[in-house]
Amino acid sequence: MTRRPWNFSAGPSALPQQVLQTAAEQMQDWQGTGVSVLEMSHRGNAFMQIFEQAQIDLRRLLDLPQDYAILFGTGGAIGQNAIVPMNLMGKKAQADYIVSGSWSEKSAQQAGCYGDVRILASSGKVLEQDGKQYPAWAWFPGIADADDWQVRPDSAYLHFCSNETIGGVEFADWAALADRITAQSVGGADVPLVVDASSNILSRPLDIARTGLVYAGAQKNAGAAGLTLIIIRRDLLGRALPVCPFGFDYTKMEQAQSMYNTPPTYAIYIAGLVFRWLLEQGGVEAMEQRNRAKSRLLYNFIDQSGFYVNRVHAGFRSRMNIPFQLTADADGSLSKRFVQQAEQAGLLELKGHRSAGGMRASLYNALPLQAVQALVDFMQEFEKRYG
Amino acid sequence: MTRRPWNFSAGPSALPQQVLQTAAEQMQDWQGTGVSVLEMSHRGNAFMQIFEQAQIDLRRLLDLPQDYAILFGTGGAIGQNAIVPMNLMGKKAQADYIVSGSWSEKSAQQAGCYGDVRILASSGKVLEQDGKQYPAWAWFPGIADADDWQVRPDSAYLHFCSNETIGGVEFADWAALADRITAQSVGGADVPLVVDASSNILSRPLDIARTGLVYAGAQKNAGAAGLTLIIIRRDLLGRALPVCPFGFDYTKMEQAQSMYNTPPTYAIYIAGLVFRWLLEQGGVEAMEQRNRAKSRLLYNFIDQSGFYVNRVHAGFRSRMNIPFQLTADADGSLSKRFVQQAEQAGLLELKGHRSAGGMRASLYNALPLQAVQALVDFMQEFEKRYG
Repeated sequence: MTRRPWNFSAGPSALPQQVLQTAAEQMQDWQGTGVSVLEMSHRGNAFMQIFEQAQIDLRRLLDLPQDYAILFGTGGAIGQNAIVPMNLMGKKAQADYIVSGSWSEKSAQQAGCYGDVRILASSGKVLEQDGKQYPAWAWFPGIADADDWQVRPDSAYLHFCSNETIGGVEFADWAALADRITAQSVGGADVPLVVDASSNILSRPLDIARTGLVYAGAQKNAGAAGLTLIIIRRDLLGRALPVCPFGFDYTKMEQAQSMYNTPPTYAIYIAGLVFRWLLEQGGVEAMEQRNRAKSRLLYNFIDQSGFYVNRVHAGFRSRMNIPFQLTADADGSLSKRFVQQAEQAGLLELKGHRSAGGMRASLYNALPLQAVQALVDFMQEFEKRYG
Repeated sequence: MTRRPWNFSAGPSALPQQVLQTAAEQMQDWQGTGVSVLEMSHRGNAFMQIFEQAQIDLRRLLDLPQDYAILFGTGGAIGQNAIVPMNLMGKKAQADYIVSGSWSEKSAQQAGCYGDVRILASSGKVLEQDGKQYPAWAWFPGIADADDWQVRPDSAYLHFCSNETIGGVEFADWAALADRITAQSVGGADVPLVVDASSNILSRPLDIARTGLVYAGAQKNAGAAGLTLIIIRRDLLGRALPVCPFGFDYTKMEQAQSMYNTPPTYAIYIAGLVFRWLLEQGGVEAMEQRNRAKSRLLYNFIDQSGFYVNRVHAGFRSRMNIPFQLTADADGSLSKRFVQQAEQAGLLELKGHRSAGGMRASLYNALPLQAVQALVDFMQEFEKRYG
């Protein structure tokens, strides 16, 4: 390779070059110990140093209040789809879900195994707005207007996904949602928000202090697959159902400081390197600026074009995952050609999710503006050739 | 460091130098793709190549019949303590357990959350033999004599741990156990064996074809923490309880070829490198020879010494984890000194598990005979100084 290609993968996804370089240098010998991080006992001094620093750095990045615990788990967001209700349903035995795409739909479906689940709104249900039809991936256009959302005051929690990786739909104003619940609440009932933030955590400031629980697979903005970040308000501990596996019981995890079982040590190490890199770059505020610029560049280009289209409602367009289609490509052959030629040009993983078709560009933290510019340049060329 | 220290960690544990070297070299660019394995989409061509080769190599190493599926999971053996009964209890709603130490004790305890669990034998229950008292970590001396083991013909499975990492107790003759069940079985009832082989898988030939399910955390003989190997006879699929999380449902995992959720890609890559190394070394037969020689060297030294002692019954001594105590060390201060001085001499992680005290040397595949010789030399010196 003459230069490193740009990797637009939706996850696992691009990591900062600096992180990879450090990982390569330390692979056979971590800081003079003569031991690789891969080989370290999770209870030894060396790994404990890595582990504690990662937690300190993540807490700083997220500006996390002390009444929230950080847990390092496994099983990804799909695992959490079951682990969350097993931990939080408690005696209330009911929870409310917002379905904004295929990820939150899976969450709601799985939660139904552990209690009474009500879907308050779904991208399927609110398709009509202003007499217009919106496709399934256009998330409830205008969340503030959705007056039919009735959070049940006796629900254990309200779950939503803050960024639908497949649909490219993001909702980052968690405070507005929390306010909405408070305004609706009968007799001041507290229904905590539970957020699947797998694909937008650490990409911008997020109001965790207004939530009860946030979880995220690490393989997008926080490193390697195989690590799940769980951030829980401590008053929600102690509610696990009897069927909850001990190793996935937040209370047991918290008591054991995420070492109830052997944690995914290497993935934690990589996450720690990413956290350190993020702090050096200026934290989530700096990331937000970059990610805004990156996504604007691509959305603006798409919107001025008659050749490409992104159909997500402007207020809910994701800064992280941007799906786009060709306006004329009945049999999908031109999209296929796009993906192939892009790959030859060093622009990788632009194929849309198999359930959505078309293309998708994921612009996580590690991807620089330069990469998005290269993509836009390529799109321009491709349009000239086939438009 | 002048030379790489020897790492006797019980897990995560030493990896072959060659594996670490390859991982370091490929960290920033896997085979000219310009992409790190850490960054690869789990559905992309490059990772699929790694993934499929790892499965082929593991199947070859284990000489696995076609009616067994390999699943790559997460959550470790502690996760499987719940995931196994949720998948296998089925309508029988009962299972039998052998408790040979703290790991299998945890397994039995967790399984009780999902059905009726009977402990057929435990290291606590069969402590008396030939009028002698055996400590808790001396597993049922003489398994063939344990006539009070009555496997219930209606049990969904019989679970045991083939190597207790803490107690240093191993039972590798799975065929004998399977024969025993068959001999006992009423009307030919088939009670499949379920084996936690976390710490002796790949260390010797093991008779997987006589079992229903084998699982193992990868962080001992198969690479990095965060990956769980699951080997299941296909006729046992399709029995998951309604409370079993989708992502941990063996049937869904098998249908999705271990990609129901994003698998721990990097840990799979490292496991693949280890599998390849094992094949190059001559497979599990070669490993058995080495491990026999390594463990003999240490046991023989301990047994001829009046200064050190290992109290596990000779027939059940582990080749992988060798706990040993000082015969005279009432307050534990001399053991502490041993561990400290060993570390200074480049012999790492020799401290016994906090529940067992004393010392423990784990001699997994990646540790050469030379390392055990260095340990024995050190032990000799230490005995001269303090004996």
